[in-house]
Amino acid sequence: MRTRVAEMLGVEFPICAFSHCRDVVAAVTNAGGFGVLGAVAHSPKRLDSELTWIEEQTGGKPYGVDLLLPPKYVGAEQGGIDRQQVAELLPAEHRAFVDDLLVRYGITQPAGQQPRTTGGGLNISPKGYEPLLEVAFAHDIRLIASALGPPPADLVERAHDHDVVVAALAGTTQHARRHAAAGVDLIVAQGTEAGGHTGEVATMVLVPEIVDAVDPLPVLAAGGIARGRQIAAALALGAEGVWCGSVWLTTEEAETPPVVKEKFLAASSTDTVRSRSMTGKPARMLRTAWTDEWARPENPDPLGMPLQSALIGDAQLRINQAAGQPGTRAAELATYFVGQVVGSLNRVRPTRSVVLEMVEEFIDTIGRLEGLVDK
Amino acid sequence: MRTRVAEMLGVEFPICAFSHCRDVVAAVTNAGGFGVLGAVAHSPKRLDSELTWIEEQTGGKPYGVDLLLPPKYVGAEQGGIDRQQVAELLPAEHRAFVDDLLVRYGITQPAGQQPRTTGGGLNISPKGYEPLLEVAFAHDIRLIASALGPPPADLVERAHDHDVVVAALAGTTQHARRHAAAGVDLIVAQGTEAGGHTGEVATMVLVPEIVDAVDPLPVLAAGGIARGRQIAAALALGAEGVWCGSVWLTTEEAETPPVVKEKFLAASSTDTVRSRSMTGKPARMLRTAWTDEWARPENPDPLGMPLQSALIGDAQLRINQAAGQPGTRAAELATYFVGQVVGSLNRVRPTRSVVLEMVEEFIDTIGRLEGLVDK
Repeated sequence: MRTRVAEMLGVEFPICAFSHCRDVVAAVTNAGGFGVLGAVAHSPKRLDSELTWIEEQTGGKPYGVDLLLPPKYVGAEQGGIDRQQVAELLPAEHRAFVDDLLVRYGITQPAGQQPRTTGGGLNISPKGYEPLLEVAFAHDIRLIASALGPPPADLVERAHDHDVVVAALAGTTQHARRHAAAGVDLIVAQGTEAGGHTGEVATMVLVPEIVDAVDPLPVLAAGGIARGRQIAAALALGAEGVWCGSVWLTTEEAETPPVVKEKFLAASSTDTVRSRSMTGKPARMLRTAWTDEWARPENPDPLGMPLQSALIGDAQLRINQAAGQPGTRAAELATYFVGQVVGSLNRVRPTRSVVLEMVEEFIDTIGRLEGLVDK
Repeated sequence: MRTRVAEMLGVEFPICAFSHCRDVVAAVTNAGGFGVLGAVAHSPKRLDSELTWIEEQTGGKPYGVDLLLPPKYVGAEQGGIDRQQVAELLPAEHRAFVDDLLVRYGITQPAGQQPRTTGGGLNISPKGYEPLLEVAFAHDIRLIASALGPPPADLVERAHDHDVVVAALAGTTQHARRHAAAGVDLIVAQGTEAGGHTGEVATMVLVPEIVDAVDPLPVLAAGGIARGRQIAAALALGAEGVWCGSVWLTTEEAETPPVVKEKFLAASSTDTVRSRSMTGKPARMLRTAWTDEWARPENPDPLGMPLQSALIGDAQLRINQAAGQPGTRAAELATYFVGQVVGSLNRVRPTRSVVLEMVEEFIDTIGRLEGLVDK
């Protein structure tokens, strides 16, 4: 797939794989695609060791890192707040609701060693992500992506000094224009069908709109892409590559909690929902008792970012731990971010096979399309 | 575009144009596409004269007719209810809300000659659509489409006796399987980004899923399609043609109320919403004061089908009449069904030009895709 993005990233296939799992990142890069490690919840030390491991596995092949740089979040004016401050801002009503929810679903045992407030550890403020950037730029990354909000000017400058491509995700044409003005090199146009933080406009509509709006910047399509036909469709729309997340969650390498992986394999495309219940911003995930509980009018509304993830981080951990055990209804609650393509994820495959099947179907599709036009 | 659907319908371009406007239907058919007249609100007499006119204009070229055949609606058990019965079922609270809404937006003058309860006249029950079918089958139609619900067995049989292709719209794979079991010849896989009655799954995800589920039945893609790149994407996904509605609403020929046409030309892709406020079933339309008012928790919820359209039919007529006149805020309320592609509808074009530009961009896109693959 000879596109400008393939050249820019130095890959054979401009298939970008977003994953929190280093094994997936390395496997995609080794298969000729481009792995991107989601690092927002990592400590600097852990990020350092993950990137070192990826580089050992891939022997100099290109990969990237993804962070959340949201312009709007609780404490943004002060440049971010620390974990203790976050904890103090959690309303008693919300804490009580989450505690009660766990009890109602029979989850009584505590989480492992110490309560890990995963969400409270989302490094979404300059205080939080600055040390991660230090680590990332000390490694041989080829791309840095901002999954929420335009990257700050100094980040763009530093990236370019390191010859690192800057990408940013956009759910509307307005976002894309803002990213372009901020100096990014690559726009990821993400449709509503995507997993995780997502807007309301579908990939089919969003991609050509953004391609035209930011021309001549190259665009990747995200949302609804898990196979070669969808890659061909994305390129028909004007994208020069794709950005996929959900499809890796059911691979052999994925660290998806087992109960969630099983649910993904069984789910259909109508089983997802956009919900603020995980991070405080609308994100698409599997619809389960968890999202239903948060949607009930009599229950509290989710908090903002980063309070919601701080509120529920420990509960999520306990749910996933309890879900495999008898005597609880934890499995009903278990959920995770995933896009509507979950309906087509019906078997566990090695990551490498996913990439190669995508490429094969892509090539077949282009051949089929050629046959439709009179010469 | 040599697909099975092009052959089945006897057209050069398998671009199906759904429109309530006979001029659009005729122009698309004459341009080498396939016009489909939306006939649910027509009287048998009017349908007869519309079809006669279309046939005069197109000189034997193929066209089709679209009806709503919903399996679930108020009165379905009795085979449908008449206008008088519908009127009696409208709650006083709902009538009062609509009356008050008009007053609040300064709409005091009555509608033209006699109140036309458009919606009450939706011919969605056998009683209502049977006379329309009589008319349609007496004409030289090539296709009959069911926009809601699987077509009844006797309809499929009659259509096949007349050598008429039966199509049905599906928003989920489950719907598509039901249609296939009912004996339809062609499935229209309609993504959530479409205007009008629509589900939640996006075109990018829905089309390949349905193509695989109903194989070997051919599939058209609907939702998010207004230009050649999107047609190429649809065909990449496995569709053998497209079904478009929104793109015709801003053509020269379209009978869209002037204030609504202006709004469509100015709107962006984020300006639509799925709302039950027009027909009682979720349908995508332009978000305006009308949809916002119906979404407020303190206002009544929309009624079911066909009560809601009976309730609001006259009000809609009065809104569109008043919208062009000074001294009212009617223009704020004015809305109509449209998909997310409304963001790309920025100029009024002749219908024929729309078709030909679609085809030209489609061919260019296939050429561009060929260049991406190493030979």
